Amino acid sequence: MPRKIVLDCDPGLDDAVAIMLAQGNPDVELLAVTTVGGNQSLEKVTRNALGVGSLAGVTAPVAAGADSPLLEPAQDAGHVHGESGLGGVDTPESTIELDTRHAVEVIVDTVMCEEPGTVTLVPVGPLTNIALAVRREPRIVERVAEVVLMGGAIRVGNQSPVAEFNIACDPEAAQIVFSAGWRVTMVGLDLTHQAQATEEVFARIAEVGGPVADLTLGMLSFYRDSYRSSGRLDHPPLHDPCAVAYAVDPDVMTTRRAPISVELTGTLTRGMTVADLRLPADESCPTQVAEQLDVDRFWNLVLDALHRVAAAGPTPAPGAVAPTPAVDAADLVETTEQVDAPG
Amino acid sequence: MPRKIVLDCDPGLDDAVAIMLAQGNPDVELLAVTTVGGNQSLEKVTRNALGVGSLAGVTAPVAAGADSPLLEPAQDAGHVHGESGLGGVDTPESTIELDTRHAVEVIVDTVMCEEPGTVTLVPVGPLTNIALAVRREPRIVERVAEVVLMGGAIRVGNQSPVAEFNIACDPEAAQIVFSAGWRVTMVGLDLTHQAQATEEVFARIAEVGGPVADLTLGMLSFYRDSYRSSGRLDHPPLHDPCAVAYAVDPDVMTTRRAPISVELTGTLTRGMTVADLRLPADESCPTQVAEQLDVDRFWNLVLDALHRVAAAGPTPAPGAVAPTPAVDAADLVETTEQVDAPG
Amino acid sequence: MPRKIVLDCDPGLDDAVAIMLAQGNPDVELLAVTTVGGNQSLEKVTRNALGVGSLAGVTAPVAAGADSPLLEPAQDAGHVHGESGLGGVDTPESTIELDTRHAVEVIVDTVMCEEPGTVTLVPVGPLTNIALAVRREPRIVERVAEVVLMGGAIRVGNQSPVAEFNIACDPEAAQIVFSAGWRVTMVGLDLTHQAQATEEVFARIAEVGGPVADLTLGMLSFYRDSYRSSGRLDHPPLHDPCAVAYAVDPDVMTTRRAPISVELTGTLTRGMTVADLRLPADESCPTQVAEQLDVDRFWNLVLDALHRVAAAGPTPAPGAVAPTPAVDAADLVETTEQVDAPG
Amino acid sequence: MPRKIVLDCDPGLDDAVAIMLAQGNPDVELLAVTTVGGNQSLEKVTRNALGVGSLAGVTAPVAAGADSPLLEPAQDAGHVHGESGLGGVDTPESTIELDTRHAVEVIVDTVMCEEPGTVTLVPVGPLTNIALAVRREPRIVERVAEVVLMGGAIRVGNQSPVAEFNIACDPEAAQIVFSAGWRVTMVGLDLTHQAQATEEVFARIAEVGGPVADLTLGMLSFYRDSYRSSGRLDHPPLHDPCAVAYAVDPDVMTTRRAPISVELTGTLTRGMTVADLRLPADESCPTQVAEQLDVDRFWNLVLDALHRVAAAGPTPAPGAVAPTPAVDAADLVETTEQVDAPG
Repeated sequence: MPRKIVLDCDPGLDDAVAIMLAQGNPDVELLAVTTVGGNQSLEKVTRNALGVGSLAGVTAPVAAGADSPLLEPAQDAGHVHGESGLGGVDTPESTIELDTRHAVEVIVDTVMCEEPGTVTLVPVGPLTNIALAVRREPRIVERVAEVVLMGGAIRVGNQSPVAEFNIACDPEAAQIVFSAGWRVTMVGLDLTHQAQATEEVFARIAEVGGPVADLTLGMLSFYRDSYRSSGRLDHPPLHDPCAVAYAVDPDVMTTRRAPISVELTGTLTRGMTVADLRLPADESCPTQVAEQLDVDRFWNLVLDALHRVAAAGPTPAPGAVAPTPAVDAADLVETTEQVDAPG
Repeated sequence: MPRKIVLDCDPGLDDAVAIMLAQGNPDVELLAVTTVGGNQSLEKVTRNALGVGSLAGVTAPVAAGADSPLLEPAQDAGHVHGESGLGGVDTPESTIELDTRHAVEVIVDTVMCEEPGTVTLVPVGPLTNIALAVRREPRIVERVAEVVLMGGAIRVGNQSPVAEFNIACDPEAAQIVFSAGWRVTMVGLDLTHQAQATEEVFARIAEVGGPVADLTLGMLSFYRDSYRSSGRLDHPPLHDPCAVAYAVDPDVMTTRRAPISVELTGTLTRGMTVADLRLPADESCPTQVAEQLDVDRFWNLVLDALHRVAAAGPTPAPGAVAPTPAVDAADLVETTEQVDAPG
Repeated sequence: MPRKIVLDCDPGLDDAVAIMLAQGNPDVELLAVTTVGGNQSLEKVTRNALGVGSLAGVTAPVAAGADSPLLEPAQDAGHVHGESGLGGVDTPESTIELDTRHAVEVIVDTVMCEEPGTVTLVPVGPLTNIALAVRREPRIVERVAEVVLMGGAIRVGNQSPVAEFNIACDPEAAQIVFSAGWRVTMVGLDLTHQAQATEEVFARIAEVGGPVADLTLGMLSFYRDSYRSSGRLDHPPLHDPCAVAYAVDPDVMTTRRAPISVELTGTLTRGMTVADLRLPADESCPTQVAEQLDVDRFWNLVLDALHRVAAAGPTPAPGAVAPTPAVDAADLVETTEQVDAPG
Repeated sequence: MPRKIVLDCDPGLDDAVAIMLAQGNPDVELLAVTTVGGNQSLEKVTRNALGVGSLAGVTAPVAAGADSPLLEPAQDAGHVHGESGLGGVDTPESTIELDTRHAVEVIVDTVMCEEPGTVTLVPVGPLTNIALAVRREPRIVERVAEVVLMGGAIRVGNQSPVAEFNIACDPEAAQIVFSAGWRVTMVGLDLTHQAQATEEVFARIAEVGGPVADLTLGMLSFYRDSYRSSGRLDHPPLHDPCAVAYAVDPDVMTTRRAPISVELTGTLTRGMTVADLRLPADESCPTQVAEQLDVDRFWNLVLDALHRVAAAGPTPAPGAVAPTPAVDAADLVETTEQVDAPG
């Protein structure tokens, strides 16, 4: 049975890869893509979601959500993701029509319409939409299978010494999500900094070929430059796809159960995810922290999805006839088997 | 032209009078009554809104909203408003069907459907619904005529030394409302403590007669006991009707323009409304504080509305034939003229 | 029996008058004058204390204390008190030698050497010295008669919407002082704004004549200009002498017992004095707030002291022969009687 | 030239070993031992400092300091260090007379009397005394060689999820110390948890023999039980001696330069040491974090000191004739050479 996923994102360079991973993985049924202001303005990230979604062949609804956090002023990470949000790369033309509903309605409707316990929410931007959905329809908390989010940090932040960008953008929303009572897996910087796109990864992406590889390499080159020029890392970490990867294949990383809360009032620590790691957590603890990434397995998941997305071709425009896939389904099966084999 | 009002409330003893004032005032068109958890649980306050609304002849939609604040745990003021939320009084039977929409949708739909600049939001409970509506549909901010809220305190609080109950219940929601940019009139404790229901007021209510007087006197007696037993005031202040009164008739109180923010992080002051009263505020300042109540004018407004509500009779049950009003319209005109005359 | 006072100050225009009031009042034994950085740098306020003290005939030790608050960076109110701290007026030449001890030692030594329950501490600047003394020698808490401080505000602040300058300069020190357990009378802005130096007060000071009147009028003119140019008050309030006045003559103002704490963590309210005025405080409550000033009585105390100080002449330089007072003691008795008579 | 050390402590089991290490190391000149309330009440930790100091042969002044933190209420770690502060072990009888000065005076006097740049402060308890000394005599900041403190944590706390006991006891004092501008080396839990007293360490201590071994083993057994029963560690970490070890021999651990501040206002993070580890710190950064302990070198330092302390015998009572050392100086030289050889 495929895993049903709602991807809430703010593309954003690594978000774009997250969309392709969610769309390209054969075990995922992507129910909706929702957008939230974060890495760039709501308008830009929504345009990017539509464009990247089109290229990736997304047929699920794409809906725009909150344009600003609950209390913090809207901010963006244009210094990392570029003016457009996709680095220097042109946003692909969209063949998808934006859903007329608000993202919060799409999230609530989707969760309430699907069978209980089947939908995984995967937010990889600020948690504003998810928090609004919880307060708007509290019954989704019991109905969701789990929340797998990209955000937070245990040891070192990026927005401040101890706070990560997504959480720091909307700490109140994050605290609503962490404290709701549902199962939450926090895929934070401690994990995602293990998912660095090395030269070898760049080479493997190049092998995918076509517009998918062009877009991805273009974005990652920009991303790499931005990390290098700030003196942080030589190889850019692909934060957001890590959360999708865990939602798809929990064996791709180890996790540790721990109570997690968001600091809302600290002068130096506002937006920090505070995990209690002093002792092993009780089994009833619904929150957990991702710890160790199986790096090979992760990149195999990503590469496999990129190949599939490239093969399947873009979303047909409304009313258009679906194009013939460029690659044969039989080929894909083989690729998958190779990919799934332990490295 | 009647003033169009959306009343967001958590009945609650004084909320019940606020509903009757909004329904009974001839210059008000009550567009909707929405509920929010606060003085009691969402379930109870919604039942009370339906019951009191029925008795008052409300025909506008009544919809339930948020059952808990954005971040604070839900709390209630059962020690003040009793187990049922209406003191020892039985909630009147409802002849109104609850609207199936969420209060946030009702607020957004109502504001977006009416002409711009015509709708006044009158929240008299925690501000959770209003804050969610702002974040859900930011365009309501420009479209609303103004927000007149009961909440806050300049000098002395009731939930803490400096915080008032409605704001302290959901400080984050309050800060969203105060900072949204729309015109906000804060009708706080400094004003509402002037609206004390004295023996004379009790006597005037008794003259209304019928179930409206019975309900009101029953509630106010309980309310008076609760204020007296805690040693605070001899005569209970009718907080919530003050906000409705200002929305209906701005001359009923004086106001002072001042920047107002809600303290979110103080150890002793969380939930305090911080107004800057050091210097006169700039004319562009959209927030103002109510200062001096015209006590006679206020009680005349309340009593007039109670008389009209009593005269008009309860809401007909769905499908029922509207009953003949017990009092002639002609009588009412006279009553109003008397009432409006300066005391 | 004269009241024994330690005056801890940061002259400062109104501090200068406080020194003259403490020195000139016949019922006061001024045990020490200690200085603390606040209205201006420690160096400047100490020079001013020595100069004003000399002019006022102070013979008690004058010692310098903390140059910066416990945690806040040092700040000054040069915009109010001028570059020198005494407005445009030249600091009088000092005939007093600075005590070699630190102010904290002087405070501790003085309290521990005098009889228990006889010394009143009158801090009229940031509370850094007093807090350090409490932590350095906790036994002074039981030994002091009471602390009468100028600082804080109930309704409107001056450093922020709700915080007063002295408390906001060093909130942690203030909290140590308010929570120590000794009797504290807070003479805050609500009280001191009643002590405005009107034209009539200016005229009465002019009658004192000599260098004392010259200095005082020079300072107050500057002070008045600073209040007027900022649009706050037409007549400058003499904050600090109010605290001395209460220490000398408690009948000069009414007070109300109330628990008082200092907000240390609020974003908008840090440094606010939070008093719980909801209900009457328990008799065991050691803190109280000054409420209503007897304005005539206050100015009579101030004027009487100025006359006496002017009459007694400056502090003789070390080794100098004491000068003959310019005015006869017999005259002073008469003056006092006149002054004490109700205006 | 021996390193001149002032040890500020709250014995405390590991503090007791720190005293013996400081006294027993041949390269240290112990200038003073000062005490502060923390692991137990000031009275108890002072009695313990005198007793352990006597057994260790301390001849430097021992003085008592602050009995409570600047703002936090006094607390103790009796659950870790036992009722007496030394586990189940009887405090050795003291042959030292307590210095009559306050610890803050001793610290200030010592630093101001020694040559500039020669004295290292080694606080291993709450930082109250050090902070009071800085505010009492700011010139010590430039005059001290460096501060090496045991306290803080980068990743996991012990008093809260992210705060360490010594810092959490008095966060304001800690912030004064970290921000003073002098060189501070933070030896926190990340480092000290590497200094676990294993069975082998117990065996090596047993070889020391005599009352020194008896006391140390008695304390460490209690300490081990306390760590085991709380499920934290199998072998107790000797926190405080690590700071002394670094002061004596900086090669015993690696450090990393990083800006460090103490969170004062966080709801979840108050008392956390927030280090900015995102990028390498500038060379001008005066604070650094200890990272990696050379475990063998550390225990050799400790064991060598215990042997020397045991050999030298206790402090002679005032007026007593110094006893003949039990061991020959020649023997000690050999021992040292062995110990200093790389393991």
